Amino acid sequence: MSSVFPSPPAASLESVSTPCLVLERGRLTRNLACMAATLALRGGRFRPHLKTAKSADIGRLAAPPPEGAITVSTLREAEYFAHHGWRDIFYAVGLGPGKLPRVAALLRSGVNLLTMADHPDAAAALRDFAQREALTFRTVIEIDCGDGRAGLPPESAELIAVARALGPYFAGVATHGGHSYEERDPTGFARVAQAEADALRTAAARLHAAGFPSSVLSLGSSPTALTGVDLAGITEVRAGVYMFWDVFQAGIGACTLDDIAVSVLAEVIGRPAHRPNEFLIDAGAFALSKDISTAKLGPGRDAGYGLVCDADGNLQPGLRVTKVWQEHGLVVSPAPLAPDAFRIGSRVRILPNHACPTAAAHDRYFVVDHTRAVLAEWTRVNGW
Amino acid sequence: MSSVFPSPPAASLESVSTPCLVLERGRLTRNLACMAATLALRGGRFRPHLKTAKSADIGRLAAPPPEGAITVSTLREAEYFAHHGWRDIFYAVGLGPGKLPRVAALLRSGVNLLTMADHPDAAAALRDFAQREALTFRTVIEIDCGDGRAGLPPESAELIAVARALGPYFAGVATHGGHSYEERDPTGFARVAQAEADALRTAAARLHAAGFPSSVLSLGSSPTALTGVDLAGITEVRAGVYMFWDVFQAGIGACTLDDIAVSVLAEVIGRPAHRPNEFLIDAGAFALSKDISTAKLGPGRDAGYGLVCDADGNLQPGLRVTKVWQEHGLVVSPAPLAPDAFRIGSRVRILPNHACPTAAAHDRYFVVDHTRAVLAEWTRVNGW
Repeated sequence: MSSVFPSPPAASLESVSTPCLVLERGRLTRNLACMAATLALRGGRFRPHLKTAKSADIGRLAAPPPEGAITVSTLREAEYFAHHGWRDIFYAVGLGPGKLPRVAALLRSGVNLLTMADHPDAAAALRDFAQREALTFRTVIEIDCGDGRAGLPPESAELIAVARALGPYFAGVATHGGHSYEERDPTGFARVAQAEADALRTAAARLHAAGFPSSVLSLGSSPTALTGVDLAGITEVRAGVYMFWDVFQAGIGACTLDDIAVSVLAEVIGRPAHRPNEFLIDAGAFALSKDISTAKLGPGRDAGYGLVCDADGNLQPGLRVTKVWQEHGLVVSPAPLAPDAFRIGSRVRILPNHACPTAAAHDRYFVVDHTRAVLAEWTRVNGW
Repeated sequence: MSSVFPSPPAASLESVSTPCLVLERGRLTRNLACMAATLALRGGRFRPHLKTAKSADIGRLAAPPPEGAITVSTLREAEYFAHHGWRDIFYAVGLGPGKLPRVAALLRSGVNLLTMADHPDAAAALRDFAQREALTFRTVIEIDCGDGRAGLPPESAELIAVARALGPYFAGVATHGGHSYEERDPTGFARVAQAEADALRTAAARLHAAGFPSSVLSLGSSPTALTGVDLAGITEVRAGVYMFWDVFQAGIGACTLDDIAVSVLAEVIGRPAHRPNEFLIDAGAFALSKDISTAKLGPGRDAGYGLVCDADGNLQPGLRVTKVWQEHGLVVSPAPLAPDAFRIGSRVRILPNHACPTAAAHDRYFVVDHTRAVLAEWTRVNGW
């Protein structure tokens, strides 16, 4: 929703309303270039996942339409990116029967929408619908390469049954090594990357032997995409959070804190006189999210609800958001704060634990590049 | 954002797109009536907090405009409710200097906006701005009655200094007994309710003695508002989550599970063959939030990321959402599920741990009343 009392376009991070999402363009483009270069070396076709960025402006930098192939996590994202010119879109969440009518509208509008299933009932519902509506679906079977979320293990007895249920709409296999987030070093990321590739090759070989050749073998996660694991036979790689990175990804060694491209700009709204190590900001559970994924990284790496930078993005060592309420965040410093530091009305930037849910609370990015000047406002699509 | 491919108005919970937010009108109106009746008995003026509902349709039921007095947690809420006709609005978060221009626009539009401060610097910035812009602010001093978030302790040396800094814009005192959420029974809620009232009376007496009489003594939280503590001298009571309640509030004894008015409608999108106690839904971290506040309630009361009901809202004992990813939720049952239960494509409703962040992920309510028929779609205002 736009504000009922619109402000003139903000020219500086000193004048934008807080809390809001700040995007460092230089870091974004460096992250995009680094991933593109790595995948070019590996010989992989890239299908960036826009579930984190959810922005046509960012999508144009990562995989420009109409040729660019992208991945999405919701049908609203698919509809939004289709509206902005993309034609090659993978909806990489198991497709439930209730979503078939919206998928049909996308297919009829000319979008080449790749869908995913992992159960005979979902596949049969899709096939019956496609035949009744005279639509050409292209559907991959989701494979579980060890993550334990969704998908069939590659050696699953059900694998061929799902392909049979899909019939002419079977297009291949896809997996996501989400358990790369449990690893802590490049060796671990490579192990999961190998598991992704092996699972797809095993599943595709079994399907091929049963008369179902795969034209799509799609895999990826940000940590595994940056490994050197052989991609022979793999047709595409997916990754999303790498565009922004976050404190959790830095904590597991997938990036550094200097790579993090998004932060939440907040205003200091409280300096309790009897709590000299603390101040309150106007970014709380809603603006930062309640994600505490760094807590499991152990002492010294627990960022609470985010790490604190000054208004220019310089990290303030030791300062963390340790508690959040709906619209308040509590910043705690290991040592008493100087009276002149972080005064009421000053601004800070919070590096998010997990960029995806933090960004999802905001409807736009205020784009900067090393200075406080706002170069652009890029809108996002949220919801379903 | 509206969908690029809009659907016709949904007539039933069987046809709406999932995940989405369902609001049981009967429970909402019962919760509103119960609070209104309690406060009428206590003789308190009510200023409902719309930070949870964030909807003009719900606001009209709770405190109809233009006379209705309401509370908000963001300036975007204030602007939205002002646009919908409200004139008596309390922005109950400490006002940072960066927000003064938007407050000025609201005041100039005729809104009687009550603001809040707890620091001499914030008060001085407000006073200087008000004088320069020739605006009449009305500002209360935030009092900490034991919650430990923001506000001055009632006996604080700074209290009079903040009133002096506010000068002619001083209007009174306000507090929020948020530590009522740490209590577990009516005796505990009453203890915090007493702390709220005592803190305001102490602070107001000190301010009065220093020449600053209070016209506003504002307090409240949902658990404390429903106690019988004497409100003599208190001018208004605030509460918000009581409109919807949630699993956490039921866990501390502030309501029952039958009082919970909101749930997230989700579709079953996965039934892993080798995990007979589990299924996957299309409501994950974004649709449910990552709030795990019931975890601290201990074994037997930890609802994970939410409790599971069937599509008609009947609780399914023992079923919980135990893990979430961005767009997936994992439901685990204590016993293996019958093959015909929770089949792919069937729908469930998830009772939220914490109604506020769950609702904040959604742009509308699908309003029902004991059946699956959708009676209305009520939009919400999110963001800042």
